[in-house]
Amino acid sequence: MIQPLPLFWQRYSCRRFLNTPVPPDFLESILEAARWAPSAGNLQPWRFFLVKNREIQRGLAQAAYGQEFVLEAPAVIVVCALPEVSAKKYGERGRSLYCLQDSAAAVQNILLEAVRLGLASCWVGAFQESAAAQVLGLPSGERPVAIVPLGYPGEPMPQERPRAPLEKIVRRIE
Amino acid sequence: MIQPLPLFWQRYSCRRFLNTPVPPDFLESILEAARWAPSAGNLQPWRFFLVKNREIQRGLAQAAYGQEFVLEAPAVIVVCALPEVSAKKYGERGRSLYCLQDSAAAVQNILLEAVRLGLASCWVGAFQESAAAQVLGLPSGERPVAIVPLGYPGEPMPQERPRAPLEKIVRRIE
Repeated sequence: MIQPLPLFWQRYSCRRFLNTPVPPDFLESILEAARWAPSAGNLQPWRFFLVKNREIQRGLAQAAYGQEFVLEAPAVIVVCALPEVSAKKYGERGRSLYCLQDSAAAVQNILLEAVRLGLASCWVGAFQESAAAQVLGLPSGERPVAIVPLGYPGEPMPQERPRAPLEKIVRRIE
Repeated sequence: MIQPLPLFWQRYSCRRFLNTPVPPDFLESILEAARWAPSAGNLQPWRFFLVKNREIQRGLAQAAYGQEFVLEAPAVIVVCALPEVSAKKYGERGRSLYCLQDSAAAVQNILLEAVRLGLASCWVGAFQESAAAQVLGLPSGERPVAIVPLGYPGEPMPQERPRAPLEKIVRRIE
């Protein structure tokens, strides 16, 4: 059995970070990884906010129902989808599916590149979009879809990381 | 400037494949990569169909508005989201956002692991979901969200692969 790239299973949701700042070059590399994500029609229906500002992070943490590690992380990337960009070409399927998939692919690139650089992260999806949009001063066409705190891990990978076995989630048609 | 993992930019949408079969171990490794994708609440709201059957592929190609490379590829993975699994825990946000993001992260892992193994792929989103569901005999709780043909590339990476520069897509708040 071939093993997949270790990055895939090395990624875990980390909710405690060291105070050590993240080197700016690392953040650029992570954003560059996001930039190369695939998107329907190569529309790139996304914007990325790189936040290293305690007041803004406090607002984001509040929008995220008080998840304190959003405030405490040395850096936070907020990924926004641009539904109307996708809708202009693809209609409702662009608005409610493609732009969400595209931006999610970008998030996954962010998480993987962070692991590659020795960082940890957490994909935060539980937040009030309107509150996060207000904190960031988003125009109406930008929808915040993920908040990703980043930093050097302040807690280890959990020992238990349950995943359903392949035979439960894969069906084969030969 | 640090360069991100090359896999991110090496991935491209390939719509022509060699007839060479994909080694079964490669497909298992790709599915294993998908299995390690993150998901909200670790619900893993996904199913993967590994299709190596011309009749089924023909049906999928028809569901995808006649995109012939879905039929011609030596293997196809159809990624399905399970909206009701996510909705049970997270309500409408689970149904219309999380399960789509989670399954998109799994798709991205599939595409990246394929590149790592020297394969090429294409994220096909343009298809009639109801037709694809019928071809696969899906129960009502499974929503096909991506069709991913896989194989050895029969066409090279395009020379032009435009991406907006970081200054256009990133805003920095320090």
